[in-house]
Amino acid sequence: MSTDTADIKPVKLGVVGLGRGFMLMLPTFLDDPRVELVGAATTSELKQQEFEKRFGYRAVSTTEELYADPNIEAVYIATPHEMHRDNAIEALASGKHVLVEKPMTIRVSDAAAIVESVEKYQREVIVGPSHSFDVPIVEAGKLIASGKYGRVGMIHAHYYTDFVFRPRRPEELDSAHGGGVVFNQGAHQVDMLLTLTGAMPVSVYGCVGNLDARRPCDGAYSALIEFDNGCIGSVTYSGYGHYDSDADQGWIGEMGALKPPNVYAVARKNLSQVKNEVTAKQSRGFVAGSHVGDVPKFHEHFGNIVISCEKADLRPTAKGIHVYSDDGYEFIPLPLEGSPRAEVVAELYALVRHGMSPVHSARRGYVNVALCEGIYESFRSKQRVEIRMSD
Amino acid sequence: MSTDTADIKPVKLGVVGLGRGFMLMLPTFLDDPRVELVGAATTSELKQQEFEKRFGYRAVSTTEELYADPNIEAVYIATPHEMHRDNAIEALASGKHVLVEKPMTIRVSDAAAIVESVEKYQREVIVGPSHSFDVPIVEAGKLIASGKYGRVGMIHAHYYTDFVFRPRRPEELDSAHGGGVVFNQGAHQVDMLLTLTGAMPVSVYGCVGNLDARRPCDGAYSALIEFDNGCIGSVTYSGYGHYDSDADQGWIGEMGALKPPNVYAVARKNLSQVKNEVTAKQSRGFVAGSHVGDVPKFHEHFGNIVISCEKADLRPTAKGIHVYSDDGYEFIPLPLEGSPRAEVVAELYALVRHGMSPVHSARRGYVNVALCEGIYESFRSKQRVEIRMSD
Repeated sequence: MSTDTADIKPVKLGVVGLGRGFMLMLPTFLDDPRVELVGAATTSELKQQEFEKRFGYRAVSTTEELYADPNIEAVYIATPHEMHRDNAIEALASGKHVLVEKPMTIRVSDAAAIVESVEKYQREVIVGPSHSFDVPIVEAGKLIASGKYGRVGMIHAHYYTDFVFRPRRPEELDSAHGGGVVFNQGAHQVDMLLTLTGAMPVSVYGCVGNLDARRPCDGAYSALIEFDNGCIGSVTYSGYGHYDSDADQGWIGEMGALKPPNVYAVARKNLSQVKNEVTAKQSRGFVAGSHVGDVPKFHEHFGNIVISCEKADLRPTAKGIHVYSDDGYEFIPLPLEGSPRAEVVAELYALVRHGMSPVHSARRGYVNVALCEGIYESFRSKQRVEIRMSD
Repeated sequence: MSTDTADIKPVKLGVVGLGRGFMLMLPTFLDDPRVELVGAATTSELKQQEFEKRFGYRAVSTTEELYADPNIEAVYIATPHEMHRDNAIEALASGKHVLVEKPMTIRVSDAAAIVESVEKYQREVIVGPSHSFDVPIVEAGKLIASGKYGRVGMIHAHYYTDFVFRPRRPEELDSAHGGGVVFNQGAHQVDMLLTLTGAMPVSVYGCVGNLDARRPCDGAYSALIEFDNGCIGSVTYSGYGHYDSDADQGWIGEMGALKPPNVYAVARKNLSQVKNEVTAKQSRGFVAGSHVGDVPKFHEHFGNIVISCEKADLRPTAKGIHVYSDDGYEFIPLPLEGSPRAEVVAELYALVRHGMSPVHSARRGYVNVALCEGIYESFRSKQRVEIRMSD
């Protein structure tokens, strides 16, 4: 960190939910001096004990107890999607700022309720982490916003992963409970488009695919999004664990770590050997002896992206940004500096310490949920769906 | 050729239009024993002389004169798109089979008129060449049709080229005259989807981009196509000469030849040095001393394609097909054998010599035109457009 750590007064953060999402944020929380974990709520007694052992702060069974702690300035909500609404509104009502995992909610009506609560209780929500925080995306967004390359006209993103074949709780594959790839992965692509275009979506048209009867879920989608600056976003995703488009990223995985190249279909293979999938999923949460991930070598990424402006195409990757402009080609290297996901903590710190309104606000979270829900609504109605911000 | 050439009775072909399209087919016509050029129609006296000098057959000024030649069994129509309708219908009425460049027409009503004429005069139309003839696409289509990998659910294709910055006649950039990338390049992507899905399109939703005010034209598009077997096609194209996605094909260009890697924006550079663009375009036609292209080393291709079936993803390339299946990964090599574009001549030969109905028929050409027109109609009306076959 370039900031003098002596000046830093870490944000005192309470955690709700010690599952997979928490595990993926843990390297950041441990590494970044701007945040300190000072409490947790989880129904698992084992996880409570583990938390108290590792962090020296109390872990409780209910959000009510956690939110009653005056020492806590903000809470990080990493519970199953369906609980986000109630967990977040209760935290706001308790006077806490909120960092909530994407998707903010799985229903537009729930997202609207959170937006209302933000206004009512004058506390803020940050939706994150998501890949719209990734430095190459943020920097590409700044290049576009500078106007240097003219208007942004078209952005195309696609990603082929093994999402469907990672160990899952049943509801994670059930779209009625916010499962499947639209809410879980579409939320990333959509949010990257929001950062890159710097614009509001006007409409969405999309299709959802359920491609494997042996593991029924919404595992693929493709959608077109129109923005109010005229830009068109085209997003395609498949999580069926066949083609792995991390190959196109030089075998750098989503989390910024190198993957062994050409090792085919690991997730499918591993899952086929799993006896109890729920237990396997739990073992990836915060349990005794659980491994905190290594700090990655590169930025996180979310697949292949091509941004077409009037005077240049831009391709952000885990290592930087390819710029193909009227004036020539250049690669802007963006080495990883500081903690992984430092940008998420930065937004939280700026909010709590300096009162700065977050970029990834509840209103933006609402737009994201509206787009994801819009993909489903469009697919059902076979119509273009207009996106409107609630008043 | 593996066929015994002694058995071959070449199709006697007349050519209408000796421009760029003809030049791209010329290596095939010269190399493939199943076809012989026995006449041509062009308004250019210089091209008439050149044709007579090289082929020893008469070149005339009008299609009327050409079509009156009883020696001619079929005609290859490579005139500007707007002339295809009249050129084709007149040929059918004269009792000739027709090979017509894509797009078959630039209006659905014109396409319907050709379909009617096919039925009326009992002669056939083949629309080609197009990249749906490419061997890796045809072979991928066969793999899908075999059912080995289950249902095909989603096909995504994208291609980033310098189409807009190649030397052009004014109408080639004017969508009112069938210019721009939708009719010229969309026709390829759409036809590949027809081959790969083996299905009929139900609807299309698309957007068109005009991204460079200095060279106004429809130079990019993105569209979603729904097929009657439930498959979703997602296609994205930009011809603005920035990012060159032939990089993803190991620097094999659209025509199957190796390109110098990382030589950036050649088309833009060349065009900026051109004084008279129409003359530059003409010089790429059939003129004295014009260079017949080398026979390529690999199959032609049209950018990146990922096909998602229930049990495998397939990625056809210029060299073969990557198969990522439930059972493992394999690459099916498809070395180039015989003449380039031999598949186009094969379909023509099968029609003329053996009376076999063509795959790339007028009815299929109609569907292709309906999809391209549908992208525009959808973009104008902001609605999903249903595709219906004329009766």
